[in-house]
Amino acid sequence: MAEIIRPTLVLDKEVCLRNIEKMAQKARDYNLHFRPHFKTHQSAKIGEWFKLFNVHAITVSSVRMAEYFANHGWDDITLAFPLNIPEISHIKRLAANIKLNVLVENKEGAEVLAHMTTSPTGVYINIDTGYNRSGILTSRTGTIDTVLKTLLKNKKLQFKGFLNHTGNTYLAKSTNEIFSRHFDALLKLKSLKQRYKRDFPNIQISMGDTPSSSIAANFNGVDEIRPGNFVFYDLMQQNLGVCDFDDIAVKIVCPVVSKHVSRNEIVIYGGAVHLSKDSIININGKKMFGRIMINNDGKKELLEPLNYVSKLSQEHGTLKVTQNQFKKFNIGDLVEIIPVHSCLAANEMGFLQTTDGELIEMMPKF
Amino acid sequence: MAEIIRPTLVLDKEVCLRNIEKMAQKARDYNLHFRPHFKTHQSAKIGEWFKLFNVHAITVSSVRMAEYFANHGWDDITLAFPLNIPEISHIKRLAANIKLNVLVENKEGAEVLAHMTTSPTGVYINIDTGYNRSGILTSRTGTIDTVLKTLLKNKKLQFKGFLNHTGNTYLAKSTNEIFSRHFDALLKLKSLKQRYKRDFPNIQISMGDTPSSSIAANFNGVDEIRPGNFVFYDLMQQNLGVCDFDDIAVKIVCPVVSKHVSRNEIVIYGGAVHLSKDSIININGKKMFGRIMINNDGKKELLEPLNYVSKLSQEHGTLKVTQNQFKKFNIGDLVEIIPVHSCLAANEMGFLQTTDGELIEMMPKF
Repeated sequence: MAEIIRPTLVLDKEVCLRNIEKMAQKARDYNLHFRPHFKTHQSAKIGEWFKLFNVHAITVSSVRMAEYFANHGWDDITLAFPLNIPEISHIKRLAANIKLNVLVENKEGAEVLAHMTTSPTGVYINIDTGYNRSGILTSRTGTIDTVLKTLLKNKKLQFKGFLNHTGNTYLAKSTNEIFSRHFDALLKLKSLKQRYKRDFPNIQISMGDTPSSSIAANFNGVDEIRPGNFVFYDLMQQNLGVCDFDDIAVKIVCPVVSKHVSRNEIVIYGGAVHLSKDSIININGKKMFGRIMINNDGKKELLEPLNYVSKLSQEHGTLKVTQNQFKKFNIGDLVEIIPVHSCLAANEMGFLQTTDGELIEMMPKF
Repeated sequence: MAEIIRPTLVLDKEVCLRNIEKMAQKARDYNLHFRPHFKTHQSAKIGEWFKLFNVHAITVSSVRMAEYFANHGWDDITLAFPLNIPEISHIKRLAANIKLNVLVENKEGAEVLAHMTTSPTGVYINIDTGYNRSGILTSRTGTIDTVLKTLLKNKKLQFKGFLNHTGNTYLAKSTNEIFSRHFDALLKLKSLKQRYKRDFPNIQISMGDTPSSSIAANFNGVDEIRPGNFVFYDLMQQNLGVCDFDDIAVKIVCPVVSKHVSRNEIVIYGGAVHLSKDSIININGKKMFGRIMINNDGKKELLEPLNYVSKLSQEHGTLKVTQNQFKKFNIGDLVEIIPVHSCLAANEMGFLQTTDGELIEMMPKF
């Protein structure tokens, strides 16, 4: 950390590799196809690390991300975002070059695919199992039938099955709630699989957000998992009971720039453009943007939750700390912030640096 | 807008130029030095536009931003962020090449400056006038004296005066609160100026956040203003009563990807990585991440506040809309989102596109 002079996203490669290995092993244990989501790291180099664990198929959340990873040699990609019609010519170009799966959830999208597709393209139907963000509700089999009928007009389109994102596990208040939301989603998808199996014997179920992929033990009927965040984990996942602090592979190292004894506040160089504005609720009921680790006589110390990132503006971060800890901070010191949401923090930074000092570039912004 | 296929930050250059012109004119009217903050646009090209209005001195919020604009020909820069000691060698290099002012607010920073400075460097003392983020409280003249005494040890350091950021105007509930917070800050800074004028006859007061620079009419005793956000404005400023919708120069154009009639929600391709997670409270008491403009029979229509961006995840945005408006959205359409906070939205995007289709790059992330 000696040469860090400004906010830097530092990645512990060992922890990251362990996270990938554990998840790959879990997928094997449950006989699941492992198709990790690359939106968290958005990096060709970190992508390479997955190959060490026999990963050959990935998930992305945008056409640009699909193009970026296709350009870096990935040839089996699921674009897990509702079909964005204005990008259809880019999608066609991708499908001509790699094994591409797309996601559709309405007749409009299905019609565009049916009319425009000229290369073999896999299609998943997006199912809403309770997160209520996007997808067709499982009860709406009429809509599913319409979408399917439209897709089947074009022989190049191969219906792969049903895909969901159990994003409501992120809002769980306990691990039991994660289990039950995962199980509920699983049952809904299984019943759909059952219903459409006769017509589509190879129908697949693709699910697996990071919370349930990490801790659930029931994947009965599931064919594939697509977790993303687990590659780094973060404070949100630790707070959900999904990982330990030791599993969090990224920290934002920030210099201390001022101290305010009258309110026990420390100001760091590290703001919304480094950590993102995602927050969780701290034990004192207040918004928390990160936890703090300091160097205490050469040993890293994770401070208690009442020491936390309490405010962020563009470049400033405010640490609320206890009176006891206040004196341990010195102006010019570097502190480590455990980010609330590593996907957004990495996206803010645009690059990472390993603990060995290696620079890792992410997908460029344009 | 015909060629936009994914979330794009579109800038109306005419509105932007008008915003710059108005602020430059206001500064002239009040006999204030205009040193705009460039952290909002972070772009060399937009920087050039300021030169049309006789701007030759700027403000930045990081050493990297100072280096970026210095490399683009700006030679009079105030680095309005508490001195970040680990970057001192970069600061020295800048000071050797351009007219640089730095900001200090503690003895530690002053000592590093006093020991290390080898080229003429202007120094402002950062004053906290009530925002309680950083700076020395005006009552702590003892601390100010200590900092000053330390700075004076090095003849290359030129004490310029007092600088603040009246960031608490952003939290005002009415324009009257903006006026009163600005006035309060102004009085505090004037009394400091008075106190130190005898020893430092050229002492300056630098203030001027966007809300007070835009609408306040009392700048008595102020020498310089440093607003930044005004170049684009945004929903937060409109909501504060600081600007009109017509003054907002940026919108994020986003494609519609799905519709959910059962909950009157529209899903757009446009999420936290495009808009940022900054929010304001809508008239219904809920968090709002942006207002919506649609194309209604070729005419742009700003929808009422009950149609708004209600949720954001990494790439998805959810629009809550009224039943009446729901039917006006079609899958594949482009809608325009007025961002809550244009500084963060621009920072997320990393580039802009003018309404004429010109691409404007921002400062690279590393």
